[in-house]
Amino acid sequence: MISNRLIYLPLGGAGEIGMNCYVYGYGPEGKERLIVVDLGVTFPDMDGSPGVDLIMADISWLEARVDRIEAIFITHAHEDHIGALGLLWPKLKKKVYARRFTATIGRLKMDEMGLPLDSLTTVEPWPAKTEAGPFSVGFVPVSHSIPESSALVIDTPAGRVFHSADFKIDPDPVVGEAWDDALLQSIVAERPIKALMCDSTNVFSLHAGRSESTIKEPIRDLIKSQGGMVVATTFGSNVARLKTLAEAARAADRSVCVLGRSMRRMLSAAEEAGVLKNFPRTVSPEEAAEIPRGNLMLLVTGSQGERRAASAQLSRGKYLGLSMKAGDLFLFSSKTIPGNERDVGKIMNAFSEMGVDVMDDAGGKYHVSGHANRPDLEHVHRLLLPDMLIPMHGEHRHLREHVKIASEAGIASEIATNGMMMDITGEVPQVAEYIETGRVYLDGNVLIGALDGVVRDRIRMALNGHVMVTVIMDESDEPLGEAWVELMGLPQVGRGERALAETLEGDLTQFLDSAGAKVLKDDDKLDEALRRVVRQVTMEEIGKKPEVTIVVSRLQAE
Amino acid sequence: MISNRLIYLPLGGAGEIGMNCYVYGYGPEGKERLIVVDLGVTFPDMDGSPGVDLIMADISWLEARVDRIEAIFITHAHEDHIGALGLLWPKLKKKVYARRFTATIGRLKMDEMGLPLDSLTTVEPWPAKTEAGPFSVGFVPVSHSIPESSALVIDTPAGRVFHSADFKIDPDPVVGEAWDDALLQSIVAERPIKALMCDSTNVFSLHAGRSESTIKEPIRDLIKSQGGMVVATTFGSNVARLKTLAEAARAADRSVCVLGRSMRRMLSAAEEAGVLKNFPRTVSPEEAAEIPRGNLMLLVTGSQGERRAASAQLSRGKYLGLSMKAGDLFLFSSKTIPGNERDVGKIMNAFSEMGVDVMDDAGGKYHVSGHANRPDLEHVHRLLLPDMLIPMHGEHRHLREHVKIASEAGIASEIATNGMMMDITGEVPQVAEYIETGRVYLDGNVLIGALDGVVRDRIRMALNGHVMVTVIMDESDEPLGEAWVELMGLPQVGRGERALAETLEGDLTQFLDSAGAKVLKDDDKLDEALRRVVRQVTMEEIGKKPEVTIVVSRLQAE
Repeated sequence: MISNRLIYLPLGGAGEIGMNCYVYGYGPEGKERLIVVDLGVTFPDMDGSPGVDLIMADISWLEARVDRIEAIFITHAHEDHIGALGLLWPKLKKKVYARRFTATIGRLKMDEMGLPLDSLTTVEPWPAKTEAGPFSVGFVPVSHSIPESSALVIDTPAGRVFHSADFKIDPDPVVGEAWDDALLQSIVAERPIKALMCDSTNVFSLHAGRSESTIKEPIRDLIKSQGGMVVATTFGSNVARLKTLAEAARAADRSVCVLGRSMRRMLSAAEEAGVLKNFPRTVSPEEAAEIPRGNLMLLVTGSQGERRAASAQLSRGKYLGLSMKAGDLFLFSSKTIPGNERDVGKIMNAFSEMGVDVMDDAGGKYHVSGHANRPDLEHVHRLLLPDMLIPMHGEHRHLREHVKIASEAGIASEIATNGMMMDITGEVPQVAEYIETGRVYLDGNVLIGALDGVVRDRIRMALNGHVMVTVIMDESDEPLGEAWVELMGLPQVGRGERALAETLEGDLTQFLDSAGAKVLKDDDKLDEALRRVVRQVTMEEIGKKPEVTIVVSRLQAE
Repeated sequence: MISNRLIYLPLGGAGEIGMNCYVYGYGPEGKERLIVVDLGVTFPDMDGSPGVDLIMADISWLEARVDRIEAIFITHAHEDHIGALGLLWPKLKKKVYARRFTATIGRLKMDEMGLPLDSLTTVEPWPAKTEAGPFSVGFVPVSHSIPESSALVIDTPAGRVFHSADFKIDPDPVVGEAWDDALLQSIVAERPIKALMCDSTNVFSLHAGRSESTIKEPIRDLIKSQGGMVVATTFGSNVARLKTLAEAARAADRSVCVLGRSMRRMLSAAEEAGVLKNFPRTVSPEEAAEIPRGNLMLLVTGSQGERRAASAQLSRGKYLGLSMKAGDLFLFSSKTIPGNERDVGKIMNAFSEMGVDVMDDAGGKYHVSGHANRPDLEHVHRLLLPDMLIPMHGEHRHLREHVKIASEAGIASEIATNGMMMDITGEVPQVAEYIETGRVYLDGNVLIGALDGVVRDRIRMALNGHVMVTVIMDESDEPLGEAWVELMGLPQVGRGERALAETLEGDLTQFLDSAGAKVLKDDDKLDEALRRVVRQVTMEEIGKKPEVTIVVSRLQAE
């Protein structure tokens, strides 16, 4: 008898918050049929990935097993879950299933890349199910900070898995479906949960989460109290928040203008998908410019301080004919994601210089999180009563804390980070295999591996500067003329006020003049020797060891 | 009659938190005698100043008026107040006054740069005064997170200025002098305060600050409850915190080992200056390695996630024979400075992977700030009753908020950012002049201007990569051989799997072969044309516009 096994393999999102990509498999070892859950991105930063446009999971493991993949399921339309769809789909070319709003966004992404829109299938929520090989998958509505976020109920011959995706417990989410204990209870009653793969983002938040609806009144009061123009930013995908803000504006007799392509796109996708109704009529930037400031509210992109988004543009001056001035209010109805503090701070200070009052989410008055806090997680553990729990959607410390909580509640729980294939056939999760994983960068319009060295070289040039040396050797392998040095990202003048390039040229030429034929004839030896001279002289002159490129051109006898 | 004026000019620290440098002047306009308060640094980051070692204020304005400078006063030994002393002193060469502990640190900095130690004079605290031209300056002990922090009472013929420096209101600061309302009252009684220049760091913290002593018990309880090794980090200069941590360790029967040069240096300076007494005996790393983990506590540098500090080293593995493992505790008895979240998070996750429990200052149980919160600031305003208040030590939004509070309390208050010379002779502060200011970078061992373009080029190379083109022209200005291309920080392969360098070489050579003599003979035209080809081809191939360096070598007829 062949024994089948049920496996779980995170390729992204476990050990980090971002680029979610999870794999489930069922079948004989090494021949499991596979499904993929989410194809997300994460965002680059100057520290670790300068110049990169987007980061996603390395799915080589899936590519090598593409014939075993049954389908792709997307839980919701946040970039860290759907952002890589258009980029990675061509490597898999499998059917994609998502609920209507998510599918609307997904089709936009496929369309941008010229990919077939019919590869995306819109599915109805639970109790509807999609069959995919040995898997039967249902989309269970959960509340989150975007419409139609869904947990997946994944039924297999080995048992039922509950893949929570991103969720919070919100009985009144303003837009979209409320959290429904009874629905979850009915799912458990129908078939017990073997394994829960669970969101861990807010495991360190000790108080119970608050409903999106609780900030409606504070926001309304705040906007009503203002005399000047009010500008608010939040994630463009937080359609509920946009509705709350827009309705508060209308209640204060303000017209609403939406600035930022991604936000407008989300709003129209939400209307198209039927999840957003009665959103106040908006005005164009041109119309807005004619409206008295006290009767105007702008909803703008750029809650994380993104350089090109509307909030940053406004902080630098006029944007689409609109500008902020003393007496206006700028509201961050958002949380600053760790790492973005500096960029957000810059914008706050720029507004401050204009005399604009800036409000942030201080005290959570004007923002609530979209993820379940610790007490909410514990509530879900009790509700679903899984045999085992594997935390996901968290950095290592979040996963670790989540395992601790689950274990204390008597649930078999293990940390599984990217690349750890877990066998969840038995009663406890067990490591089956370690898969090589990593990150892939979208750089310009090329996908490159994170370890290709491209970004490493960029970081080195940024830290150390770059010296380029050109040397011409004549037909008899003797230096022709002097060495030529170009500097980039290095001080022009070193100690003793000597010009660095000239000092280098002098020392390199001197070296060439005295070097033996053995070195001069051998490209590698010459390169190494010149490089050594450059680094040594630069260290002496300016105290740095730069990156060095040596170009030796050899003239050939004609 | 010549009218004298009293001026205040921030060169650093006003509109930012860091690189404090303030100037006061008294005398006829344009001939004021000057004193300098603090010469601090701020720290570089990859986003804005990659490869830079330290950042300090551009003091060109002072250099051009060096004969008018009477003296330099250093309020306390934090890097953002004293860090540039050894680097900028040679440009001023004036007497430096500081209290004993600060002077001890200052002498270390002078010594490192081979500068005369006797330029530093140790002064006694208030009521002692130092005469400096028309100024008489007293050091008033205030509580802060470093020993002997001092406000300056600056007496001038035009009135008394109170320069708060960095302070908190702490009646029981564990190490150093307690905050003393009566002392401040006596200063005001002696002569009213004309102008208060006031710390603004914590103006957005709405609750009253807490004493350093309030965290003694929680820290003691935490350490007592641990079975494994305990490692704690905080700022090395927070000598009081180090004492609290070390005493808690001793109370839990643990030996204390200090890892990190800067921390050890601070401790010995504090002992040498007589401000630190009865610090528990410490053991060396070698001794520590022999002590059972349950009887050991490490005090380590690197609370901000600095790559080379002890905490980061421990997060990567063995450091000086010591390493962390499951069951140990790592305590961040510190606040993460905005911008450092990612680095600190990396360390936390690395420890989590080792099975180490990580505690941070969540809820302020194990850390208190060294700066006055809003109610404390208001208390000081009431205590000093200044005619005017100019906020300092804050980003623009902090300064703005502080002005708001002061104005509401009826104090004449204005924002003065770096380079705004304020005339404070009259009843209200008035802008006298805008001075050109900026930042200077220590890069390797060279000082460069922030706007010299060096760092801009580094950032561009990091974002866009670098293409180097070498072309040789023969004696008749015809291309000799083909163009040669080197790439750094760019994908090797573009769309269609073509090698980027080869594609570029082909297209450049083709261009050279078809170019007219006019272009080929003209260095500038040729450079521009080749550059255009590179950027166009690279854009087509990989979707990026790189930095380009063109080297054209022209052979000369012999």
